[in-house]
Amino acid sequence: MNGKSLVSITDFSKENYLEILDLAKEFESRPNPDLFRGKVVGSLFFEPSTRTRLSFESAVTRMGGRIIGFTEASSSSVTKGETLYDTIKIVSNYCDLIVMRHAMEGSARYASEVASIPIINAGDGANQHPTQTMLDLYSIQKTQNKLENLNICLVGDLKYGRTVHSLLMAMSEFNSTFHFVSPKELKMPMVYKLFLENRGLKYEEHTEFNDIVKEADVIYMTRVQKERFSDPIEYEKTKNAYNLKKDMLKNAKPGMKILHPLPRVNEIHTEIDSTPQAYYFTQALNGVFARQAIIAKILGLK
Amino acid sequence: MNGKSLVSITDFSKENYLEILDLAKEFESRPNPDLFRGKVVGSLFFEPSTRTRLSFESAVTRMGGRIIGFTEASSSSVTKGETLYDTIKIVSNYCDLIVMRHAMEGSARYASEVASIPIINAGDGANQHPTQTMLDLYSIQKTQNKLENLNICLVGDLKYGRTVHSLLMAMSEFNSTFHFVSPKELKMPMVYKLFLENRGLKYEEHTEFNDIVKEADVIYMTRVQKERFSDPIEYEKTKNAYNLKKDMLKNAKPGMKILHPLPRVNEIHTEIDSTPQAYYFTQALNGVFARQAIIAKILGLK
Amino acid sequence: MNGKSLVSITDFSKENYLEILDLAKEFESRPNPDLFRGKVVGSLFFEPSTRTRLSFESAVTRMGGRIIGFTEASSSSVTKGETLYDTIKIVSNYCDLIVMRHAMEGSARYASEVASIPIINAGDGANQHPTQTMLDLYSIQKTQNKLENLNICLVGDLKYGRTVHSLLMAMSEFNSTFHFVSPKELKMPMVYKLFLENRGLKYEEHTEFNDIVKEADVIYMTRVQKERFSDPIEYEKTKNAYNLKKDMLKNAKPGMKILHPLPRVNEIHTEIDSTPQAYYFTQALNGVFARQAIIAKILGLK
Repeated sequence: MNGKSLVSITDFSKENYLEILDLAKEFESRPNPDLFRGKVVGSLFFEPSTRTRLSFESAVTRMGGRIIGFTEASSSSVTKGETLYDTIKIVSNYCDLIVMRHAMEGSARYASEVASIPIINAGDGANQHPTQTMLDLYSIQKTQNKLENLNICLVGDLKYGRTVHSLLMAMSEFNSTFHFVSPKELKMPMVYKLFLENRGLKYEEHTEFNDIVKEADVIYMTRVQKERFSDPIEYEKTKNAYNLKKDMLKNAKPGMKILHPLPRVNEIHTEIDSTPQAYYFTQALNGVFARQAIIAKILGLK
Repeated sequence: MNGKSLVSITDFSKENYLEILDLAKEFESRPNPDLFRGKVVGSLFFEPSTRTRLSFESAVTRMGGRIIGFTEASSSSVTKGETLYDTIKIVSNYCDLIVMRHAMEGSARYASEVASIPIINAGDGANQHPTQTMLDLYSIQKTQNKLENLNICLVGDLKYGRTVHSLLMAMSEFNSTFHFVSPKELKMPMVYKLFLENRGLKYEEHTEFNDIVKEADVIYMTRVQKERFSDPIEYEKTKNAYNLKKDMLKNAKPGMKILHPLPRVNEIHTEIDSTPQAYYFTQALNGVFARQAIIAKILGLK
Repeated sequence: MNGKSLVSITDFSKENYLEILDLAKEFESRPNPDLFRGKVVGSLFFEPSTRTRLSFESAVTRMGGRIIGFTEASSSSVTKGETLYDTIKIVSNYCDLIVMRHAMEGSARYASEVASIPIINAGDGANQHPTQTMLDLYSIQKTQNKLENLNICLVGDLKYGRTVHSLLMAMSEFNSTFHFVSPKELKMPMVYKLFLENRGLKYEEHTEFNDIVKEADVIYMTRVQKERFSDPIEYEKTKNAYNLKKDMLKNAKPGMKILHPLPRVNEIHTEIDSTPQAYYFTQALNGVFARQAIIAKILGLK
């Protein structure tokens, strides 16, 4: 992985995933405040994102590295008519690695072809967000003590949700069974279902949420956004159908965990926060270790 | 104080104040560039503030700590509908201590109840700004060589000014005599006057500024903002009555010092900047040492 | 240079330039990750600028220093009516050196008179941008192996372009011959032509670009902005006349290099990026070393 960009979760192999997870575990148990000393990470958020940005900043600074960058496009030279090509070329001179978030699908891949240093994609539109997937894998492994043969239930916006698409592709390496729970308008796209069929993996589609909770080892929740619906009436009908409430957990498996890429709006009731199944805040913490591991591998450190 | 949040100046005792002042003095005379090494401070400014933010950033970075965060709510996930509860929960994972400024009164207390790490309130609306009060105490102690038995003159917006309220409460531990100088519409609220009466402390209210200057050991100036007046004519009448001009200092005590939490607009004439009484810029510098001391105590360092 | 501000390129002497260039060369060949340890640089961008800001941040953090500051005036106290005088006075308390960008001509000089610490001007309106000039000199020296007796061709907006004015003044120390290529509305101002005449230096003015390429050792391109033209028809006529295309390079000297302060819009065709003459992205990298050298000299380090 040394010197490689991470644009899509498929840029890395199953072996890469496992190496990263091992290293994340090591960083969690034995912090190393000097490993990134002298390294400068460019944090280019053309689109704002507190959580992802602060997670990367925490990951880098806790290991002694430095951050430079911008938090939204308005403080960048984009407003002076500069192309992404030029911005990436120039910023490549200022740092050892670029973390970028951009609204446009494909922008991270393009940047990785232009840059003289590695790029980590921190989200390019509805396309990819591979470090999120690595922290999801790390969270699943930590809570289930394995990655193989799990029942993964993906809930909410399965059409546009980049996190569920990447997670599906990554977990397909580990013989998962998938349950897709979504409104009709936001179903898992055919391309991902074909992907699973080609690999001989099982999936089921559901519009009813309640029935499937008891099957799951992992429930992965996502936001259902009003803007995704062409018909507002359809939104009003389905908006609460994919919310998780405490009484739905009564038949859940003991070790089942609820994940969410966050931010949530109301799709997980706050009464769930104090249940043993709630794992989304710890999942956010896991992101720090997963990102430290990815950066260390790409910079060839350790 | 180890592990405690600092939301209101009353969260700390008189003994705490004195310990912090001693430590601030030590940090001022003997800088320690490594004491905060490996520590990450989350700087969450939901409302912009250059001075306070940069003062904290200087305090932390000069002692080897790192800052992550945002400088206004628009670059945070608040715009995606995330609750303060979720934001604080998540950011708690990324750092060792959170410094927060928020427009809503009570928000810092709420955050301190949610967070798994200590919160320092850097201003919550018109409510509290306790680190400002600690630097005010430090400035008074440095210039008067004591805190006990001083004549403190508070001037300007005494109704909404959070700094004067907190300072009054802190100085009430040191047998101060208070003079309140303000327009009728911006008088010191009854609750603070009762607070002093209960402690057997003296205060006087004035609408005339000039007469009281000669009595003061400390004159604490604040901005009078037009928006605070229901009647614009009333504002026009009083706006210049609470401005400090150089000729008003001719009968001042030799050791009297003028403080101001800054920013000032025109309530202190710039001709005063070069007088021996002007202390507001040095006061800002004192904020760096006071904040270093508070953070060191809360993080249990040294 | 120890303790001095750098507001205009003329604040430093020819000897200063050469010392800075030597130090930049040393920093480029032998990085020193600890030279700025314990130093805090205030980065005050009252006007946004990615490139310059990130270049300074990279320069400082790669040598172990820390950055505090703001990236646009809206996150500063200017919005509360604070004067530049007060902002500079206060921020002087928080750091060891201030780097500032401001829209108003003369603001950096004013700040340097107010501040108790050195100021580096990172651009004040159309006036000066001296660290850009130092990186331009460093780029010229690196590519031409000398600074004396070169043919310098300045192209584009010569009327408002602060970078070409500063470069002209600096290169006048090295017996350059200048070629000015611009539309009639954006000609080099008389004051700079008189400056050269007083020093006995040669210059020629051109409205035709193509003919002059073969003479040049260095072509320094700048953006021609529509807003600079009083007559939009005039703009339409000339806008493409000062763009550099690949076929114009066929008679260029072998060692000729193309510089640009960036960002570019379309004045250098991207097909030029892969020619041996294209030097603008490396020029941006040189900025990191030039700025490290300037900061080290001003802080008296090394």
